[in-house]
Amino acid sequence: MKKLFSTLCLVSCISSTVHAQEFSPEQIQQVAQVREAAINSDLSWQILESLTTEIGPRLPGTENDKKAVEWAQAQFKALGFDQVWIEPATFPHWRRYHESASIITPSEQPLHLTALGNSVSTPKSGIQADVVFFETLDELIASPEGSLKGKIAFINYRMNRHIDGNGYGPAVKARNSGAVEAAKKGAIAYMMRSVSTSHHRFAHTGGSHYKTGVTKIPATAVANPDADQLARLFKNGHKVQVKLNIQTEDLGEGTSYNVIGQFNGTQYPEQYVLIGGHLDSWDLGTGALDDGAGVALTMAAAKHISDVKRPKRSVRVVLFAAEELGLWGAKAYFKRHEKTLDNIVAAAESDFGADVVYGFESNVSADALPVVREIAKQLAPLNVKYIRKNTARGGPDLIPLKNTTSAPIFALHQDGTDYFDYHHTADDTLDKVDPKKLQQNTAAYAVFTMMAADAKTKISGK
Amino acid sequence: MKKLFSTLCLVSCISSTVHAQEFSPEQIQQVAQVREAAINSDLSWQILESLTTEIGPRLPGTENDKKAVEWAQAQFKALGFDQVWIEPATFPHWRRYHESASIITPSEQPLHLTALGNSVSTPKSGIQADVVFFETLDELIASPEGSLKGKIAFINYRMNRHIDGNGYGPAVKARNSGAVEAAKKGAIAYMMRSVSTSHHRFAHTGGSHYKTGVTKIPATAVANPDADQLARLFKNGHKVQVKLNIQTEDLGEGTSYNVIGQFNGTQYPEQYVLIGGHLDSWDLGTGALDDGAGVALTMAAAKHISDVKRPKRSVRVVLFAAEELGLWGAKAYFKRHEKTLDNIVAAAESDFGADVVYGFESNVSADALPVVREIAKQLAPLNVKYIRKNTARGGPDLIPLKNTTSAPIFALHQDGTDYFDYHHTADDTLDKVDPKKLQQNTAAYAVFTMMAADAKTKISGK
Repeated sequence: MKKLFSTLCLVSCISSTVHAQEFSPEQIQQVAQVREAAINSDLSWQILESLTTEIGPRLPGTENDKKAVEWAQAQFKALGFDQVWIEPATFPHWRRYHESASIITPSEQPLHLTALGNSVSTPKSGIQADVVFFETLDELIASPEGSLKGKIAFINYRMNRHIDGNGYGPAVKARNSGAVEAAKKGAIAYMMRSVSTSHHRFAHTGGSHYKTGVTKIPATAVANPDADQLARLFKNGHKVQVKLNIQTEDLGEGTSYNVIGQFNGTQYPEQYVLIGGHLDSWDLGTGALDDGAGVALTMAAAKHISDVKRPKRSVRVVLFAAEELGLWGAKAYFKRHEKTLDNIVAAAESDFGADVVYGFESNVSADALPVVREIAKQLAPLNVKYIRKNTARGGPDLIPLKNTTSAPIFALHQDGTDYFDYHHTADDTLDKVDPKKLQQNTAAYAVFTMMAADAKTKISGK
Repeated sequence: MKKLFSTLCLVSCISSTVHAQEFSPEQIQQVAQVREAAINSDLSWQILESLTTEIGPRLPGTENDKKAVEWAQAQFKALGFDQVWIEPATFPHWRRYHESASIITPSEQPLHLTALGNSVSTPKSGIQADVVFFETLDELIASPEGSLKGKIAFINYRMNRHIDGNGYGPAVKARNSGAVEAAKKGAIAYMMRSVSTSHHRFAHTGGSHYKTGVTKIPATAVANPDADQLARLFKNGHKVQVKLNIQTEDLGEGTSYNVIGQFNGTQYPEQYVLIGGHLDSWDLGTGALDDGAGVALTMAAAKHISDVKRPKRSVRVVLFAAEELGLWGAKAYFKRHEKTLDNIVAAAESDFGADVVYGFESNVSADALPVVREIAKQLAPLNVKYIRKNTARGGPDLIPLKNTTSAPIFALHQDGTDYFDYHHTADDTLDKVDPKKLQQNTAAYAVFTMMAADAKTKISGK
């Protein structure tokens, strides 16, 4: 009954009255002005080009990571943010130095692979061993004890392509725990098909984990065409031997910094809309899609708003540190601010590339839904649909927030159909970003952020 | 007047009468049977899969090249060819051992590049130097004497995408002579944008040359996204320093083998249709498009013909050696057979990938055009258009034949729009071949080869 009432009310009363309640005609006019400015500006592109070209890869703890922290502060200041500051975050500092591999039998040929993040090294001279083939992690887990003694385990699980990236979760299991499960059976190294939808010869890196009490073995991912090659060799009954040399280093605890820029609110400056992305990237590409785009478009969105006005509440752009190694910047941020998380009136992270935003979804209290619907109306001209489920999960750096609070979370859903063609590979470079789509993203973030910050009602979570 | 007559005759007399003259209804029926068999068979795919999977890269002089020669002989025999033999060819034996590069300033980041074929090494510890940027080879040539002393020259010329690959010639000039021109101005190394239409991070190798009296400097090609990165750094006014380590070896004269299989003709066995591809490949990919496809589809085409009949003339499949290093197998073949080249009644090489054959073109005497038109008719059901220009150039391995004789040359024009996305890169792997398109290619070669071998008239060149 409650639901029916809501629906009736939505049709008969809210749409005609909330507008006046939440946003004045002047405010709506300002939103349109910001949207127009963002959709016609190359500011987010300029920021993204600068980050990915002049700095490039930004693995946490590297010299480039330090440069990125300096760069971000300078950018915020140049854009006129009212406040710019950094907050430390520690993380396990890991470095990749060398990786090479070949198929040895039946014929020698290069194998394109990469070490997973956190992987240990092989001996300096590498290892050479027979490969045992599995289609899935479950198949490997079901293999007899000791059956992989002295062998290299290989899992060929294929990631599925989907607009919302739903193939990633199932595929990433083999990345998270494959090396542990292989080591339990006696394997001396682990290879997996890349968690990637690419048909090109790029291996996909990403976080992996070891378990206390289980031998740490080198953990790697093989480019998809190379995984196909291995699969064909097995299908044709060949004994496959592989030579592998991985040199990495665990450098203990590292420190990097969340970089934060804020435009202060005029009425409730302590309250803020949190938007952002993560400043770090994997070391293989230049982190254009992951997550230079999120960094650039949220910085630019805030700037476009400030060009028109300062909303009632603050607009805070948080560029998280060390996301790729385990959300370390996000954990530090939400821990440091745990007593004031109620001040967050809306939080959204852009960390899914730079293809168009097709959907807008909230995760807020019922009271806040009228504001959400007004925001959705102003996103519609950008071809962003309102997804009414109200179950948004936000980006990865919002997980610590979502897990510990009932903060109001938003998702500006991006089309992720092609995202995993590039994600975590050397091929994640600036040319993969479409400037027009980046503008649409920037405009969508600007509209959402401005309205959430400037609404009459403070948005609250559920 | 002569032309008008031909045109009139084409309409009024030839189309109705040549059929009976050149091919009996039974022969046309046999052609249809071969075409149907080829379009429905996975034989060419199986051959291609075997070559690219079980052997992989086939740089002339390597162990894999030797294996490929063995493999090809075994394949010909297994397919039931009447004669299988090899003929030696020598070539300059060159090997790639190591290549790595980084941009050093303004930030350190990996640079994806590859040594051009024939490139000398850097010192073992590599070199590090400032880069000088040129848009074209002509710009470099126009630069002042000594202006590149101690520098690395970089040419950013972009290859144009076209169905017939016409962007390759202009772009390849900088590959052929860029290192020489750069060395003349004092450069210590040479980098060029890849001769490639790819948007992915694969560097394109290929033949390059030095000149007596000019210092040999390391010659490399940079992946296109990396060339873009360099271009942006220059555009933004940065001084760009690059570190480069190339280790290669000139191993003197090597020997490999053309591998030849023949189905003997029933009436004029000394006369033959020559089809084929080249067996070698660059070392980066597995040579699926270049030129495993040509090898596989011409072998399969001949086999499909033999399943139906032996034509009047022989069908000879020549798998040329060491094409990539300078057509060495082709030179050896046509030199060795120079006294009997009149026996070639038609020659066509497939060496342009595996996309669909869209056009059929001859380069023959006027007497032979009626036969050509009959062949074109039987290719039409495969969506192959007859290109009447009669100026076919054939594949690269036919250049020595074309340059020294008036042999009848044919081209089965393939759609090369995407060919240079993969050509000479690590990404030239089996998954880039579409099985259906490979079948269409095989069927087109089978139809052409069978009819040229079985026509009443011996086709002659002009």
